[in-house]
Amino acid sequence: MKAVVKANRASGLELVKMPEPKLGPKDVLIKVQVASICGTDVHIDDWTYWAQQRFTPPRIIGHEFAGYVQEVGKEVTFVKAGERVSAETHISCGYCYQCKNGYREVCRKSKLLGIDYDGTFAEYLSLPEHVLWKDDPRIPDEWATIQEPFGNAVDTVMSEDISSKTVLILGAGPIGLFAVGIARACGASLIIVSDPNDYRLDIGKKMGADIVANPKNTDILNCVLEATEGNGVDVVLEFSGNKLALDQGLKSLTPGGRISILGIYETPVDIDLNREVIFKKIRIYGITGRKIFSTWYKTSRFLSSGLVDPGPVITHTFLLEDYEKGMQLMRDGMCGKVVLQVMP
Amino acid sequence: MKAVVKANRASGLELVKMPEPKLGPKDVLIKVQVASICGTDVHIDDWTYWAQQRFTPPRIIGHEFAGYVQEVGKEVTFVKAGERVSAETHISCGYCYQCKNGYREVCRKSKLLGIDYDGTFAEYLSLPEHVLWKDDPRIPDEWATIQEPFGNAVDTVMSEDISSKTVLILGAGPIGLFAVGIARACGASLIIVSDPNDYRLDIGKKMGADIVANPKNTDILNCVLEATEGNGVDVVLEFSGNKLALDQGLKSLTPGGRISILGIYETPVDIDLNREVIFKKIRIYGITGRKIFSTWYKTSRFLSSGLVDPGPVITHTFLLEDYEKGMQLMRDGMCGKVVLQVMP
Amino acid sequence: MKAVVKANRASGLELVKMPEPKLGPKDVLIKVQVASICGTDVHIDDWTYWAQQRFTPPRIIGHEFAGYVQEVGKEVTFVKAGERVSAETHISCGYCYQCKNGYREVCRKSKLLGIDYDGTFAEYLSLPEHVLWKDDPRIPDEWATIQEPFGNAVDTVMSEDISSKTVLILGAGPIGLFAVGIARACGASLIIVSDPNDYRLDIGKKMGADIVANPKNTDILNCVLEATEGNGVDVVLEFSGNKLALDQGLKSLTPGGRISILGIYETPVDIDLNREVIFKKIRIYGITGRKIFSTWYKTSRFLSSGLVDPGPVITHTFLLEDYEKGMQLMRDGMCGKVVLQVMP
Amino acid sequence: MKAVVKANRASGLELVKMPEPKLGPKDVLIKVQVASICGTDVHIDDWTYWAQQRFTPPRIIGHEFAGYVQEVGKEVTFVKAGERVSAETHISCGYCYQCKNGYREVCRKSKLLGIDYDGTFAEYLSLPEHVLWKDDPRIPDEWATIQEPFGNAVDTVMSEDISSKTVLILGAGPIGLFAVGIARACGASLIIVSDPNDYRLDIGKKMGADIVANPKNTDILNCVLEATEGNGVDVVLEFSGNKLALDQGLKSLTPGGRISILGIYETPVDIDLNREVIFKKIRIYGITGRKIFSTWYKTSRFLSSGLVDPGPVITHTFLLEDYEKGMQLMRDGMCGKVVLQVMP
Repeated sequence: MKAVVKANRASGLELVKMPEPKLGPKDVLIKVQVASICGTDVHIDDWTYWAQQRFTPPRIIGHEFAGYVQEVGKEVTFVKAGERVSAETHISCGYCYQCKNGYREVCRKSKLLGIDYDGTFAEYLSLPEHVLWKDDPRIPDEWATIQEPFGNAVDTVMSEDISSKTVLILGAGPIGLFAVGIARACGASLIIVSDPNDYRLDIGKKMGADIVANPKNTDILNCVLEATEGNGVDVVLEFSGNKLALDQGLKSLTPGGRISILGIYETPVDIDLNREVIFKKIRIYGITGRKIFSTWYKTSRFLSSGLVDPGPVITHTFLLEDYEKGMQLMRDGMCGKVVLQVMP
Repeated sequence: MKAVVKANRASGLELVKMPEPKLGPKDVLIKVQVASICGTDVHIDDWTYWAQQRFTPPRIIGHEFAGYVQEVGKEVTFVKAGERVSAETHISCGYCYQCKNGYREVCRKSKLLGIDYDGTFAEYLSLPEHVLWKDDPRIPDEWATIQEPFGNAVDTVMSEDISSKTVLILGAGPIGLFAVGIARACGASLIIVSDPNDYRLDIGKKMGADIVANPKNTDILNCVLEATEGNGVDVVLEFSGNKLALDQGLKSLTPGGRISILGIYETPVDIDLNREVIFKKIRIYGITGRKIFSTWYKTSRFLSSGLVDPGPVITHTFLLEDYEKGMQLMRDGMCGKVVLQVMP
Repeated sequence: MKAVVKANRASGLELVKMPEPKLGPKDVLIKVQVASICGTDVHIDDWTYWAQQRFTPPRIIGHEFAGYVQEVGKEVTFVKAGERVSAETHISCGYCYQCKNGYREVCRKSKLLGIDYDGTFAEYLSLPEHVLWKDDPRIPDEWATIQEPFGNAVDTVMSEDISSKTVLILGAGPIGLFAVGIARACGASLIIVSDPNDYRLDIGKKMGADIVANPKNTDILNCVLEATEGNGVDVVLEFSGNKLALDQGLKSLTPGGRISILGIYETPVDIDLNREVIFKKIRIYGITGRKIFSTWYKTSRFLSSGLVDPGPVITHTFLLEDYEKGMQLMRDGMCGKVVLQVMP
Repeated sequence: MKAVVKANRASGLELVKMPEPKLGPKDVLIKVQVASICGTDVHIDDWTYWAQQRFTPPRIIGHEFAGYVQEVGKEVTFVKAGERVSAETHISCGYCYQCKNGYREVCRKSKLLGIDYDGTFAEYLSLPEHVLWKDDPRIPDEWATIQEPFGNAVDTVMSEDISSKTVLILGAGPIGLFAVGIARACGASLIIVSDPNDYRLDIGKKMGADIVANPKNTDILNCVLEATEGNGVDVVLEFSGNKLALDQGLKSLTPGGRISILGIYETPVDIDLNREVIFKKIRIYGITGRKIFSTWYKTSRFLSSGLVDPGPVITHTFLLEDYEKGMQLMRDGMCGKVVLQVMP
């Protein structure tokens, strides 16, 4: 089968022929229909510092997908051939302290699809039954593949009830943009989006933002105070991984508010804990992964019911062979989510 | 001033001339612009058993309203003349165990507007400063007056986060209908409304219900199971005060679900606790009043932001003098919320 | 091996020779050290109406135990031979709506140990790996076997934070008595226990109750009001399955309080929803099973740290052969928990 | 009356004669029985940078106390002469966004006793009725005066249910030491206390810590991992205001855990958000003040029921005249809480 592989400890990827994956008794063989590109994949392609520390070639990359069950191991009961599935990409152990306490998303022995396991940028994929998710038939393929990052946005938005709240969203990459739609669907009463990229702010508007603001030419704190009668926002959702944005976010919070942080920072971050967190009695939620599988249910319902239309975020579709075009668009920031058509 | 008064311990109300209310140092005199009729007012008019136990004539009735501050007592700081206000109708003591623990809505010394205090069906109204709510200028008068019952719906819907959940709403009176709009705005993924009155089910559709069902010709449990792949709903909101509806609601809940109950029952209710609550691990929330004032903030934002349009529920407007027309429509069930124009 | 079996659809049990259980690839063979008797076992022995509806002979009964891993199936990784274990008795499917949403305790395809699977009143037991719990070495055998019902008490007590709260506990059977110790350990500021059995009230005292009251000679509501300056209690924990007790419990709750109900009722129950639940804004939690496995962690910590000493509740130990002596004590109410020594 | 006053913008305090405070219609005149010294008072005495920014002389300092109602304003209803009271020291406005949403402790117009109002180191004190707390008669004076800082500890410990959790407490000043007792009373299963002061660690032992560790000679992270089978703790409570301690705390948290921070830092703090917060899905709670008045109820119950004995923390009592002895002990760290006897 064809597959996109990081073959060596160096920049670049290769489209190569690989043998089809093998199937254990609890495994499921999936024929991949579509996959989609995450920022992580670009890091692996570019062989950044993070990738050098974390990734061991050779490995098929990619972790977002929708595909069809081709064959099931003999002990598999959850799915059968022909069913369309996606998958949770944190393959958790099931037995550690976190797994046994309802925190499988931070399993300390977690393996990651496309990093520790061969990934989804390939014609076939083998996965243990317990990570599979049956795709709702009302969800088209190119939406089904983005359920995994959409779930990140769901957990960031919903770490507390957001209905009726005023919200500042920092960072309008694909996950931040999904968050706009989710916050809107959940009844946020005011949504302000901040990003230095006007292309992405335009998508933010389409996803339902009330106000979009470019910090290159707008004072975000002023913008927030004006829009909230001087109170500040109840909720900040931080997707940018940018220290200045985080600082603006903390300053923008009303006392008693909360901030949920999914963005990843290049270095440790300086925070004025006294003024911005303690004296304002702020709650901070670190967010990673998805609740397994309650987040998937939420995601599936937002997408299948029509409550959130992720269409404006899915800006490009390429054939798997043209994966590098997608990678380049992501480097340039001139895209939302890029989908790869694996089975044409 | 003119006022609608329950003068004697008997059926009926009277429109009479009354002296304007007096003003203490912490009180505010309000010129009532609009008021609206609650089921409670009909009970007082009809002098039902409940009214006989609870109400002492003579008293001006009514508790829903929007009006303008006319004059303020000398210690008042929160509002000033000319501002438009509505009010929380539970006038709580501020010092009992409930008040001191964040449960002012169940203050054990609570006085009620229109029952223990002279009410809103009058040209002028005097209220203590601490119960006032400043109406958002974006909210028209006839929406501002319904913030009080709308708040009941807000608390019933939002006793837990409802976003992405499947919901059964029992009872499509005005509060149940507001709840449809609120659940929709908060991102419920499926809303089924049950009521024996087709007129009200039509309004339910307009408020955003996915499915409306009349229990006179539909098996509600079957309807729920079909719409939820056999799982039952995550949430039941009970506004009907009808035992059969409650029973259907409990049966319709998926294990692990919750039911919030605002409806009032004529007699104690038989519940199969084992099967419907304990073995299914259900959470039941009794709901009354509104959180003071967090519920008002939520209400105001849903209405002022356009997230909920209560327009379809507000079916009739009459002059104050024609209050009896509204009372009759409510007895007949051929209305949503009825608004009374006090200042023409 | 020897085992206590319900052989026929009639009253009574038999101690018989049975073949040792077989082992699938994911199963674990356990040599039972001690077991303990639950009220359910008495129902099966007595062949009550519930048992007739739910139980299909022949079957080894019993579900509480501690034992040693004897042999493991070839895919088992969680435990190894020689380790001491107990087990969650709800053998959940892992794939239904409840299992996938963090509610395995109400899995709709759940099988129960000692009812749907051969139970623990036997020398050997085979169980799937995923239900096993490794017993903390600091916990003696006769405490390890009661972790399962102790967990019921943990979830009832802890359905909301009970620290500093005033508490009424209804029913002083073994689970209610565990609840006394747990509520005490969690910092309840006042614990009142009601039960008609003075023998059990004495154990309640030993477990840390501030006040024990026999409803045969004490007005429970008065007792509560006197002890709480007229406020009523913040929390009621209902273990009795008695309608009158439930009614007293609801009346004893302060407005804004919560009641958690584990007790099982013989028939549906009449509740004055208006007065006792809605107007008082009460939260009701139906409780069943245990969170898998977060409740087991809590249980294990309470027992291993010395925070709760269940000693006073464990009143009798018999050899397995003498199980009927324990059954009789339970019928007579003249015991707390009865432990059976399987391996002498 | 005599009073301890910061008279000038310079180091030092003075014991002087002052006129008795005046009484408004909603105010209460209190004869102070005992007061106690907070770190804030030492800052004001020493005229540190913080004090220079925040404090305007002349002003009577002190905010912790217990005393007797001497006289009440004519509109006061909550207390009467002779009753013993303490007070919430955040005098909130009641009308801002925070006050109206259940966050009076972060009222944006809050005035502070002993800073913006004349304080408690004096024979008489005038306070608005709405901040008063009636002291439980079972609580002795020297415990009643520490309810205010004890409440800080209550909110830090109880920002989530701590029962059965493993806990690391950083900083063993008086509030950290109260937190040890509270965490113990609430059923924490393991309590580790870290502080560089052995005198205070000894008090930590007396308050119920399982392990006390001096970071000058112990690797705190190793200590935590050893005591938790390598999992890390579920909860960190940060009272030290020390960056290294905070860093150790974050590293010590198990994935999915929470940290509550009351300590104040001299400068902004560098946090490795990725590794210590986001990838571990940590919740951070900024803590300030007390919930008004639910925290006071908790505090009062812990103290009056005997669940927490703060005795070991209250190390010294002086006459008001000898306040400077207490100040010096606090500078030296050779004390827990210092109480001042105002009425001998």
